[in-house]
Amino acid sequence: MCRWMAYTGSPVIANDLLFRPEHSIIVQSLRANLGHVTNGDGFGIGWYGTGADETPALYKSAHPAWNDENLREIASNIRTPLLFAHVRASTGTPIERSNCHPFRHGRWLWMHNGSLANFEVVKRDLRMAVDPALYPEIIGSTDTETLFYLALTFGLTEDPPTAVARAVGLVEDVGRRHGVEYPVHMTVATTDGETMWVFRYSSEKATSSLYYSNDAEQVRRLYPDLEVLDQLGPDTRFVVSEPLRDLPGAWTEVPEASWALVRGGENHIHPFQPSSP
Amino acid sequence: MCRWMAYTGSPVIANDLLFRPEHSIIVQSLRANLGHVTNGDGFGIGWYGTGADETPALYKSAHPAWNDENLREIASNIRTPLLFAHVRASTGTPIERSNCHPFRHGRWLWMHNGSLANFEVVKRDLRMAVDPALYPEIIGSTDTETLFYLALTFGLTEDPPTAVARAVGLVEDVGRRHGVEYPVHMTVATTDGETMWVFRYSSEKATSSLYYSNDAEQVRRLYPDLEVLDQLGPDTRFVVSEPLRDLPGAWTEVPEASWALVRGGENHIHPFQPSSP
Amino acid sequence: MCRWMAYTGSPVIANDLLFRPEHSIIVQSLRANLGHVTNGDGFGIGWYGTGADETPALYKSAHPAWNDENLREIASNIRTPLLFAHVRASTGTPIERSNCHPFRHGRWLWMHNGSLANFEVVKRDLRMAVDPALYPEIIGSTDTETLFYLALTFGLTEDPPTAVARAVGLVEDVGRRHGVEYPVHMTVATTDGETMWVFRYSSEKATSSLYYSNDAEQVRRLYPDLEVLDQLGPDTRFVVSEPLRDLPGAWTEVPEASWALVRGGENHIHPFQPSSP
Amino acid sequence: MCRWMAYTGSPVIANDLLFRPEHSIIVQSLRANLGHVTNGDGFGIGWYGTGADETPALYKSAHPAWNDENLREIASNIRTPLLFAHVRASTGTPIERSNCHPFRHGRWLWMHNGSLANFEVVKRDLRMAVDPALYPEIIGSTDTETLFYLALTFGLTEDPPTAVARAVGLVEDVGRRHGVEYPVHMTVATTDGETMWVFRYSSEKATSSLYYSNDAEQVRRLYPDLEVLDQLGPDTRFVVSEPLRDLPGAWTEVPEASWALVRGGENHIHPFQPSSP
Repeated sequence: MCRWMAYTGSPVIANDLLFRPEHSIIVQSLRANLGHVTNGDGFGIGWYGTGADETPALYKSAHPAWNDENLREIASNIRTPLLFAHVRASTGTPIERSNCHPFRHGRWLWMHNGSLANFEVVKRDLRMAVDPALYPEIIGSTDTETLFYLALTFGLTEDPPTAVARAVGLVEDVGRRHGVEYPVHMTVATTDGETMWVFRYSSEKATSSLYYSNDAEQVRRLYPDLEVLDQLGPDTRFVVSEPLRDLPGAWTEVPEASWALVRGGENHIHPFQPSSP
Repeated sequence: MCRWMAYTGSPVIANDLLFRPEHSIIVQSLRANLGHVTNGDGFGIGWYGTGADETPALYKSAHPAWNDENLREIASNIRTPLLFAHVRASTGTPIERSNCHPFRHGRWLWMHNGSLANFEVVKRDLRMAVDPALYPEIIGSTDTETLFYLALTFGLTEDPPTAVARAVGLVEDVGRRHGVEYPVHMTVATTDGETMWVFRYSSEKATSSLYYSNDAEQVRRLYPDLEVLDQLGPDTRFVVSEPLRDLPGAWTEVPEASWALVRGGENHIHPFQPSSP
Repeated sequence: MCRWMAYTGSPVIANDLLFRPEHSIIVQSLRANLGHVTNGDGFGIGWYGTGADETPALYKSAHPAWNDENLREIASNIRTPLLFAHVRASTGTPIERSNCHPFRHGRWLWMHNGSLANFEVVKRDLRMAVDPALYPEIIGSTDTETLFYLALTFGLTEDPPTAVARAVGLVEDVGRRHGVEYPVHMTVATTDGETMWVFRYSSEKATSSLYYSNDAEQVRRLYPDLEVLDQLGPDTRFVVSEPLRDLPGAWTEVPEASWALVRGGENHIHPFQPSSP
Repeated sequence: MCRWMAYTGSPVIANDLLFRPEHSIIVQSLRANLGHVTNGDGFGIGWYGTGADETPALYKSAHPAWNDENLREIASNIRTPLLFAHVRASTGTPIERSNCHPFRHGRWLWMHNGSLANFEVVKRDLRMAVDPALYPEIIGSTDTETLFYLALTFGLTEDPPTAVARAVGLVEDVGRRHGVEYPVHMTVATTDGETMWVFRYSSEKATSSLYYSNDAEQVRRLYPDLEVLDQLGPDTRFVVSEPLRDLPGAWTEVPEASWALVRGGENHIHPFQPSSP
């Protein structure tokens, strides 16, 4: 599987988000605590600037994140209020930039940890369900990209939770028609640059981990001497595959089968249920 | 566009095929005489061993061919009776290994110079025409790979000329339905390891160049002092986008709108016509 | 050889510097007009931010500049008053990031088109002349990097023209002791982030081309309808291996055997002469 | 640190050496049991053919070994009686091909797990001790490459154990002059294509692991049902950083501070002691 990290809050230097935490996403590319221990099959970051209506930029590479010299250089020069970072452990598809996350469509970013089971078997049916106008944009071979385009087909840019529910519903439906027992396994993050939506769901109801950081003020009161927390504004929110640092009280698990809307400092959690097409 | 070279004949060291000629395929990656001058968007070689029923091996990379140190090393250690080599100039799709030629399916190899016009527009219809059992094998985003899988769908492994005619016919048909004036431009080589089939055709009837080498004995009589020719057995046949060396009398152009079967030292040319599906 | 471009002036988006000109440095990576036509053996950009006393950032890669998707993304997000860009054609050393220009030492950047003749023969003597405190910083195998460290040894950060004159003098001296007729060929640019120094010199007195852009106002008066010029502030100065666009009156050649100091909108040219050690 | 594997014996397909063992060198690139767990900072293989006086070929890449598609292809086509394989975990120098092992000089190969402490500090003195005629061949920045060239300087091609003892002696001497407490940590393998010499030594006398496989017949008697052993001829000998499979009785540790000569099926171990220059 993979590991990912999403940040929203006051503009900060990307280098601080990617490299400074004790158990940063970069550390997790080399040695994660949970899931697939090494995530060295490529990485990617996507980030927004501080202007309005900006298309996010991407820096993605098939190289491991931990040894990419350019990433450090670039990240030191990015100041961003919203960043997605992903380190990949391939579930079989080629190791190349077009298969790295996050994926982008207009102002939207999408990243994923998990897989669509037996993707080779269901791929054609899923790709055929993608809106023909969107289909040409698919350039890689990952299940993640196809799931993204299904969500876009079902109206991600209008109503993300509904769109994702329908996309997952379709994948489960197609999967079962092909005899796949547990078609979907996902923790997903998607954003339009202002709001972030995260999802934790698997057909087997035993999903890879997902955590969000608690309210920044709350965490500061718990750890008044931890200087690094001074860097973080009141609206800070991280959503992560695994905590960036072992700080009891700083992280809350996103429940199984749920989705959350994250904006400003707020974080609203709801049950997630696929909707059958 | 791209440049390619196919060799069939007595087993020779791949290094001699790739690096020795005055205007080798490697020289053409940096500076070709015709077509797209620099072909530095990746390369690939596919080759067969001397045993029977062997699957060909591939060495492909997104790096330019002219500066790949591993290619020289590997090529010095390959002895082969049949080799395909291709240097790429992308027509827009990503620069990655899954988009490098030659493509392989079982014992078959396929490479291409040219393009399917407005591929983004016709891609979905073409992909949908691929046999569902073959569809999952498509992992890149090139028009070449899709054309290969259409040819496989139409029976390439049974009757290559017919299969390619039907594939091209389909692409032209789909193209015209989408308002594409000249849907196909191709010089293609494909092989099962024993026989090679080459094609030169474009909807506009103005196709990129394609040459085959004349009978080795014939060339030797023309150039008795050219030592390098001593290396080549009587069954030697090259098919190339552009001549490996300017030797009048050594090369014959494959006519516009034709295909040729190359096996042993023989080389039979026939008219090529797409067949409408 | 290689091609390079240096920009100093009002802060602009790097993408505009790298990709917009008709004959941009990116176009030159694929097809330059002068020198070595294809410069696809890696590239690099180094840039300063708008703050004071900042260390420049680098983005360098062994891939060709023309097909690097990350470069476009990153360059769109860089706003800089001083940028170096270089596209490489290797003179024999490996194609890897540590051999890409520009090179960096503290706040200084350095890039080069040319070569130190018979570098293999003189390399040891030159490396031994590098200040032992600086020696460990050398991590690649290019002549350019060694020349940079010789210049640093001779006081580049204090007095660039004198330091470069001494470095070149040493290389010529060592070269002649080893029977090298014309030891040095260079166009070089170096900067501390505020001032830029450029050099054009070769032992043979037949150096690769180097141009600087004329005063921006002057060029605007010549081409009042050329909108792109409106983007450029009054202090704009480009120094380039070859003009970014064929605009008579917009470019002046840096004379053979000279150096220039470029700062603000000013551009002072002086004769360059190696000083024997 | 790194992991390596050396094989000598009857010619076998490289793919079987690299990919088939339960805990193969490729598995170790992703997850080793000992030392540095992930060794994803590049890899390399060097191998000899079956002819006499052949220069070994190299396939090296800065990418992780576990996800390199070309490696599988190439390895399936290599039949070799002697192969070196190395997966790298960088101790700080750049991740690029020129820093991957094995290193080659003429017919000789060299690979290393370990490091020369404070290399930055001692690098200049060590490089200056390299024979000036050999110095130009050094193209990377690793301590391993410098140690190799010191060994060559001290007569590796004539008398490997003596040469390595002198090289290590020099490094310890230089190290101590610079205040480095434990200058050398190494397990090294070197070969001329017929004989292999391996070394296990560290200044601290606490060296990374090194094992050799026991006599093939002996292992077959212990495990008569283990089919994979049938592939291995009587002269088979592996020397490895860690066992390729947990088979009690199949592996013997190379003692601390010793060297061994491996040829034919023989394996002679001797004490190793640096000789002060």
